[in-house]
Amino acid sequence: MNLEQFSQYACERVNRYLDDALSEYEPADRLQEAMRYSLFNGGKRVRPMLTYAVAQLFSEANELTDASAAAVESIHAYSLIHDDLPAMDDDDLRRGKPTCHIQYDEATAILAGDALQTFAFELLSRPSFTQPSMQLALIQTLHTASGRHGMITGQMIDLSNVDKSMSLAELELMHRHKTGALIRAAVKMGAQSVGVSDTETLAALDAYASAIGLAFQVQDDIIDITSDTETLGKTQFSDADANKPTYPKLLGLEGAKALAKRLHDEAVAQVEPFGPKAEPLVELANYIIARNH
Amino acid sequence: MNLEQFSQYACERVNRYLDDALSEYEPADRLQEAMRYSLFNGGKRVRPMLTYAVAQLFSEANELTDASAAAVESIHAYSLIHDDLPAMDDDDLRRGKPTCHIQYDEATAILAGDALQTFAFELLSRPSFTQPSMQLALIQTLHTASGRHGMITGQMIDLSNVDKSMSLAELELMHRHKTGALIRAAVKMGAQSVGVSDTETLAALDAYASAIGLAFQVQDDIIDITSDTETLGKTQFSDADANKPTYPKLLGLEGAKALAKRLHDEAVAQVEPFGPKAEPLVELANYIIARNH
Repeated sequence: MNLEQFSQYACERVNRYLDDALSEYEPADRLQEAMRYSLFNGGKRVRPMLTYAVAQLFSEANELTDASAAAVESIHAYSLIHDDLPAMDDDDLRRGKPTCHIQYDEATAILAGDALQTFAFELLSRPSFTQPSMQLALIQTLHTASGRHGMITGQMIDLSNVDKSMSLAELELMHRHKTGALIRAAVKMGAQSVGVSDTETLAALDAYASAIGLAFQVQDDIIDITSDTETLGKTQFSDADANKPTYPKLLGLEGAKALAKRLHDEAVAQVEPFGPKAEPLVELANYIIARNH
Repeated sequence: MNLEQFSQYACERVNRYLDDALSEYEPADRLQEAMRYSLFNGGKRVRPMLTYAVAQLFSEANELTDASAAAVESIHAYSLIHDDLPAMDDDDLRRGKPTCHIQYDEATAILAGDALQTFAFELLSRPSFTQPSMQLALIQTLHTASGRHGMITGQMIDLSNVDKSMSLAELELMHRHKTGALIRAAVKMGAQSVGVSDTETLAALDAYASAIGLAFQVQDDIIDITSDTETLGKTQFSDADANKPTYPKLLGLEGAKALAKRLHDEAVAQVEPFGPKAEPLVELANYIIARNH
């Protein structure tokens, strides 16, 4: 399977799972509509792809893999809704479409984000599963990545540094929390969902996730100054305009590109020992530093 | 133990547990400060009292009881922070003190609320516990009560009915979701934390919780028109001013008082069969319709 095929497989699988779970309690109301609007907004499903790609290194993806992929994506969707709010980044566009608070209203966006967070933990605690210890381990991985020890602390670091200069170490600390933590969780949960507990294996996968997570951010900063608004689906220079620190600002454009390349190579080296089964993970790493939007 | 003593016991116990869990990851930063500000703002801890009072009907409260009480209170605290935001109820005062977004800023308040929700699921999934099935059951109870099937849908109903008239049935539906669901979860989790699974017992406790939950709201509406701002710690008539439907508006003040009394009696009848051990639950029901703030 090449990356396009794998992406299609992962997207269809996680979308079907999310759709089924959301539909369980009808009737659909404005809350569910707003949750769906943000969950199904054309996102590339990079995190679910990682979860499935890691699981299939070891065995067939199972229902815990589906729940993990869906839960990570729900957390990601909730974080984007809240991040776009007027009191946060105040963005009107996300992937070329109105953000949740523009399409609905601010109160609905706050609540849809809240509900998507709860939904993530709902997915992982479903009574249809019969492996409570594994489910709890997945919940632990997800809350550690997304709460005060992870993503939310990254958002706080981000907010506190608008209009300030940041060192390279500070910028990395922010990204490792704000987006890196959830990418690492997507990878770890893929392994946990199929029962992998070997420390060395988990460490190699974590090093891969850590490197591509940071590479993704570096590339985002590069795209922000080299792409145009139409390709980007958001206002060009939006991060630069907000006086946010970026890698090209600190390292220059060529320096940032070299860093992305180095992180890519580190990531690939970690998964090459898994052989041909690691192809989607290698191609994902390639895609991350080749993409222009 | 009379109610005052029991309240002191439950408050001290849940506060110590929350404090310890929050302190596990130092250093304290602005996020943790805002989480603490809202968690320790002089709330009466009615929900933790319910959790402990129910647990001790059957046996000694244990660490799962502590985690349940703390998790429910964290969800309650997060919901108040988000409810007070400018885009929601836009309240500046909560229990006589500045609300979280006034004390800090809106972005911090959104994130502190988000982090308190994650924290609730963190508390219930702690690896120090060794009863994964029970922990999962508690997580299921909490997400059902707090997410799209419970509290958040209540908030949505509330928002969509400002400046509209509501029937008694609609008002009850809103309250059963917005506040009733979490009160029922506090009661159920108290029983689940000590291993109670008997359907009849759980049904009686749920009927108790359901009745006092609604009685609490009816009494809130009564207080809103009979108490003054100083006693209330929030602006008097704030709900009436917002053109929100209330029980006294629909039933008259005497009608609302009669309803609160009837719900109280229903609640007490459900727990009387438990004998003297149910005293805190009976006294809590008494307190709910006797309080004036």
